Amino acid sequence: MRVPGGAKIDLSSYEAGATPTGPQDKAAGLAATARMGEHLADLQERLWAASTAGDRRRVLLVLQGMDTSGKGGTVKHVIGHFNPSGCRIRAFKTPTAEERKHSFLWRIRRALPEVGEIGIFDRSHYEDVLIARVRELAPHKEINHRYSEINRFEKSLADDGVTVVKVFLHISYEQQRRRLLERLDNPDKYWKFNVGDIEERALWPAYQRAYEIALDRCSTPEAPWYLIPADRKWYRNWAISKLLLEHLEALDPQYPKADFDVEESRKRLLAQTLTSPARL
Amino acid sequence: MRVPGGAKIDLSSYEAGATPTGPQDKAAGLAATARMGEHLADLQERLWAASTAGDRRRVLLVLQGMDTSGKGGTVKHVIGHFNPSGCRIRAFKTPTAEERKHSFLWRIRRALPEVGEIGIFDRSHYEDVLIARVRELAPHKEINHRYSEINRFEKSLADDGVTVVKVFLHISYEQQRRRLLERLDNPDKYWKFNVGDIEERALWPAYQRAYEIALDRCSTPEAPWYLIPADRKWYRNWAISKLLLEHLEALDPQYPKADFDVEESRKRLLAQTLTSPARL
Repeated sequence: MRVPGGAKIDLSSYEAGATPTGPQDKAAGLAATARMGEHLADLQERLWAASTAGDRRRVLLVLQGMDTSGKGGTVKHVIGHFNPSGCRIRAFKTPTAEERKHSFLWRIRRALPEVGEIGIFDRSHYEDVLIARVRELAPHKEINHRYSEINRFEKSLADDGVTVVKVFLHISYEQQRRRLLERLDNPDKYWKFNVGDIEERALWPAYQRAYEIALDRCSTPEAPWYLIPADRKWYRNWAISKLLLEHLEALDPQYPKADFDVEESRKRLLAQTLTSPARL
Repeated sequence: MRVPGGAKIDLSSYEAGATPTGPQDKAAGLAATARMGEHLADLQERLWAASTAGDRRRVLLVLQGMDTSGKGGTVKHVIGHFNPSGCRIRAFKTPTAEERKHSFLWRIRRALPEVGEIGIFDRSHYEDVLIARVRELAPHKEINHRYSEINRFEKSLADDGVTVVKVFLHISYEQQRRRLLERLDNPDKYWKFNVGDIEERALWPAYQRAYEIALDRCSTPEAPWYLIPADRKWYRNWAISKLLLEHLEALDPQYPKADFDVEESRKRLLAQTLTSPARL
């Protein structure tokens, strides 16, 4: 669902296990997502090809959501459809000492996709109005100022040919509990678990409130937020694949025409031999 | 085939269409490569997981070969097996003005994989002893010095936990002609064609010689070169998948053990409620 800006969204009124559109069961969802894979890869190749002829457009997928909401899973299963050459993926963690010396957008600007690429942010500048708000990592006034800074920044990206697609992966409190417990049930998943996750989870209502504010204030015409029900992984993967497909189809990138004489090149290639190389 | 260093290799004695080991036909090759995919992805996840507990190891796959030899195809079809999050892919083109201000290894150092990652170079520092040698882009003496610089550099990577896997994609002169002609037969592939490719192709013998020298001088115990017959794409993909699999299996990365009390975490998670959050 596209989030209407300034509409005072109430996250608790959205069912995280819902499947509001598209396939209604797992088998159909997996099949539909697999079918989209080839189409996505084809559009990505066109976007890249077009960039070699001066098309400056690119796509930026921003993934946000509570721990275990499936940001990493989305990269693996949805972005996995694309040619990895054309993807620029960046996971944002706690800022480093170097990053903290700069404005919160500094590290973001350095990780943007180049022309023709699909950029993927696993967390993003929104952390600076989410954890920063909940944990009071900056003065309230400064955090309030960041929403408009973000909107200006994202508008400048859109003006520069970046299609910004922001996805909030909406999971339920109970689903997060199940997923965290799963990590404790399987020693191969211990590495994904942090005791700090339990402490963050204790602040669930404050995080949901922080997300509501970010979605309200920063869902703009240039860079809208999309709320994706994410309790069902197959539905999440289908919905994000579909969202990317729609945006790439709207861009409709085209293979560039030849900027050389095709016939002449063919003749030269056919005439070349190893013993008497066809030098210019 | 692992290239023995200092052995005066003669590339013309290696059949580019050969299938020296492994599956002997396309159907068997595709099936065997697909089977390796899951295993590769599993080992990559272990490598990444181990890095979260301090394991500093990583892998760097260097892809070199003539135009159309399949460097891009390898990234798409072999690296496509991995989780894109853990891959750091860099295609090296003609150096930029900024890059030319620095030593030829400067841009290479900036593109290395981080711990736990699999880095992929589509072309590399070897261009500085290949096209640079053929096109005389630097004084002969300087180019000759670069081989030992490269060996020192790659040894320092190995010492730092980087498994360096260097692949020369060996195609035949006739196969390159066919692949270039294919690009001219399909308007969707015009963008992949450059008239300059015909001019480079005219220098085929000089390039083969430059590769022979690079393979001879820079196939070291710390960073050996592998010659992969690449006229058959299915064989190339199988052989590189197999090479990566062998190296990852040798690393044998392990999921880290829990550095927290699993039972206590489980109890805390089960006790948490939304109305009375289990704060520390």
